[in-house]
Amino acid sequence: MPDVVVVEVEELAGCPAPACAVRVIVGHVGDPALGGIAAGIGVPNNIETVRLCEPDSVAVRADRARVRAVSLTPQFPSPSSPTSSSDRPFDWVDDVAAQRRRAGLDREVRVREADDESLDLASNDYLGLSAHPVVRRAAADAALRWGAGSTGSRLVTGTTALHRELEVELADACGVEAALVFSSGYAANLAAVTALTGPDTLIVSDRHDHASLIDGCRLARSRTVVVDHGSPTAVDAALAAHGGPAMVLTESVFSVDGDSAPLCKLHAVCRAHGAGLLVDDAHGLGVLSPGGALPALDLGGAGDVVATATLSKALGSQGGVVLGPRRVIEHLTQTARTFIFDTGLAPACAAAALAALRLVRAEPDRCDRVRRVAERLHGRLTSAGLTVSTPGAAVIGIPASSPTAAAEWAQACRQRGVVVGCFRPPSVPDEASRLRLTARADLTDAALDRAVDTIVATARQRRRPQEVLPGGSCQRRSR
Amino acid sequence: MPDVVVVEVEELAGCPAPACAVRVIVGHVGDPALGGIAAGIGVPNNIETVRLCEPDSVAVRADRARVRAVSLTPQFPSPSSPTSSSDRPFDWVDDVAAQRRRAGLDREVRVREADDESLDLASNDYLGLSAHPVVRRAAADAALRWGAGSTGSRLVTGTTALHRELEVELADACGVEAALVFSSGYAANLAAVTALTGPDTLIVSDRHDHASLIDGCRLARSRTVVVDHGSPTAVDAALAAHGGPAMVLTESVFSVDGDSAPLCKLHAVCRAHGAGLLVDDAHGLGVLSPGGALPALDLGGAGDVVATATLSKALGSQGGVVLGPRRVIEHLTQTARTFIFDTGLAPACAAAALAALRLVRAEPDRCDRVRRVAERLHGRLTSAGLTVSTPGAAVIGIPASSPTAAAEWAQACRQRGVVVGCFRPPSVPDEASRLRLTARADLTDAALDRAVDTIVATARQRRRPQEVLPGGSCQRRSR
Repeated sequence: MPDVVVVEVEELAGCPAPACAVRVIVGHVGDPALGGIAAGIGVPNNIETVRLCEPDSVAVRADRARVRAVSLTPQFPSPSSPTSSSDRPFDWVDDVAAQRRRAGLDREVRVREADDESLDLASNDYLGLSAHPVVRRAAADAALRWGAGSTGSRLVTGTTALHRELEVELADACGVEAALVFSSGYAANLAAVTALTGPDTLIVSDRHDHASLIDGCRLARSRTVVVDHGSPTAVDAALAAHGGPAMVLTESVFSVDGDSAPLCKLHAVCRAHGAGLLVDDAHGLGVLSPGGALPALDLGGAGDVVATATLSKALGSQGGVVLGPRRVIEHLTQTARTFIFDTGLAPACAAAALAALRLVRAEPDRCDRVRRVAERLHGRLTSAGLTVSTPGAAVIGIPASSPTAAAEWAQACRQRGVVVGCFRPPSVPDEASRLRLTARADLTDAALDRAVDTIVATARQRRRPQEVLPGGSCQRRSR
Repeated sequence: MPDVVVVEVEELAGCPAPACAVRVIVGHVGDPALGGIAAGIGVPNNIETVRLCEPDSVAVRADRARVRAVSLTPQFPSPSSPTSSSDRPFDWVDDVAAQRRRAGLDREVRVREADDESLDLASNDYLGLSAHPVVRRAAADAALRWGAGSTGSRLVTGTTALHRELEVELADACGVEAALVFSSGYAANLAAVTALTGPDTLIVSDRHDHASLIDGCRLARSRTVVVDHGSPTAVDAALAAHGGPAMVLTESVFSVDGDSAPLCKLHAVCRAHGAGLLVDDAHGLGVLSPGGALPALDLGGAGDVVATATLSKALGSQGGVVLGPRRVIEHLTQTARTFIFDTGLAPACAAAALAALRLVRAEPDRCDRVRRVAERLHGRLTSAGLTVSTPGAAVIGIPASSPTAAAEWAQACRQRGVVVGCFRPPSVPDEASRLRLTARADLTDAALDRAVDTIVATARQRRRPQEVLPGGSCQRRSR
């Protein structure tokens, strides 16, 4: 079974330059989903068992483009039977590395210096608060006052008055009864999904949900149905077919393309079926409003809504949080494994997040500013002929034709001093590589101009960097 | 099916006061394991399917004691079918809370103040470095210099020169080729287990392995066999029965009782079968030696050994690390989901861990000192008649007769200004509640005397706080 299906398409006549929107659908030969472009591959699948793309039966169909070639990267090797008495049980990772290089999917960990003067459109520091003097100072003071670490689990010695203060203020900002802070957003998502589902619960997960939500589904051992991206209709159908206890997982703003979920519609669907709604507001907190999506949509007080977020994006720090009704938060305190068995967040991180939260609540214009910057980025890039996702908040995705094209495009930008994200499998929900740009509230107009000019100029220099656009292809790597 | 089996036993004549070592074995009626005390319940189980203790067929047998009562706490409620159109899908958590309170398993998040003058025997700050002026200062300086957060995934913008410096120095201290830093030890364990196993791999996991290793097993979706605690023989049998690729998971020093794993024997067994060995050195790093278990046992250079550790215990900070052969670390960089999809560790935490590591390498006497303190604690508590686990490093477990007895004992210590850990289900590997003490290198002799006097005095005041000792009971809650 291949892990990666690389599809090359060529433009059909009449497509607007430089690239037309192509929707690629991958499935088994004879798969009814291939019968209609709109169907995608997306009949709900249990993520525990979904197996697509058998090497001898893959079929591909593209909308508004002709399929030129389909190459199936063989499944990456996995541990194989060792020679008895071997001291080399990890030899197989070399084969994986070789295949990854051949597939153009090798990643480089690039080391950033403190005096790096590149223009940053890659970080998630949406409000520029990680570098804000008040936030830095709060982190430094907390380390000096409280020590470098929290010294234990939140349930043993790892809860300082600072953690409690942060939780009270986060709950207030988000309009919920209570909040619980974790060492990361990843840990918060694992906690919320596993603690709030049981063996009879149906989890309904958007196809583009973040890896940490997906891992939560795996750990929950509930049945999980993956539904079409951003589709209340698909969620409604999944819940109707189930009829029992259920929880719907979505992001408020999706991490790769930056599009918004139809949260109010999803909530209405959940309410109609008595299902809980779990909203990962990682990219909404501090951007959609100081308290994120829940207060922006007046969902904070709902007894059937729980949100998670990270303190490491708009709040410029590290850590994660679960937000919701008090009894739900108390339940997580008592049962969530990533709360009980993990060291509490370092005091410096708790203090920095608290300082940042206070800044954004005192100056909510920062949220408006970052969204305006994103809209301006989107407008200018679209005007220049690039196909660019419409930002729901601060994130913009620019599809590229292949992993290699994406990497080369990002590298060209970097050589001109502009750092953009380059997302390739398995970091993308649909196997389609792209650049990922993030707006920042502290980007000057001049910096914005420079960023746009660089991205457009490097696109023009490259050979078709944006030939294949994301569509209904599958999400196997990140599931 | 009950979640918790509470067994009350009474002493047999001739047991030494105040409590004799009791081994309680729980299993199904007719279970052959009940035929012999030594057998425990431990035939290897696939953790995905292990189901013990049906309410109508539980049998209990105790060694050196008479069973007085067996109470089966019913299974905690899980989400139930909601009323259609309900806005209360989380009502069931109230039922869980009520049952938890009745079972004496409610936990309190106690808020610690910066000027708390209690004597701390509960944190994992084994070397007292979280509060060391050099470590605090390093954290503060890093926050001022680098900003409060790392701003993105390690693969995008989240790797600073500080992260790389820390990784190089951790690898050197631990005698391995390379290291990879994560936002937590939990994340490091999830990464190592999932990235180094495939569908054909057999995972062999010690019955007392930490929750994060267990969650790694669940996410890996490999077959997992849980074997008797600390038994190379059991590991050998599991590997022999499998014959294919395999990885053995153990802690170097177990987190609850503080006993050591027979690492050299386990490594020999792994080598004989060509299996990899994954050692969670969370409680060994900075305690067994500056670089932990691997250099202490000359295992750092082995091509078939990978270690994980946390930066939040002896190093006094926050974060986690995977240590091992370069190609294994590179493989994790490219494939581990908790590396790719998590924000990088905050600079303040990386800097604090680095400063602490340098301190302990420059002054390795700290490691000797903490182990001497642990031995002295153990000796004095044993002399006073308490049954206490033998410390392999800095952790000491003191079994209690019930969750309520443990909580009351810990509370009595706290009222006298001594903070000890109180571990109850599901935080214990065998369902047996206990106090957990941690030695610290910076504990003065006078503080040690006060701690011992307090623990012994409160034990004498309580009615049989240590009646039931841990034995072969099952590990279902934490699996």
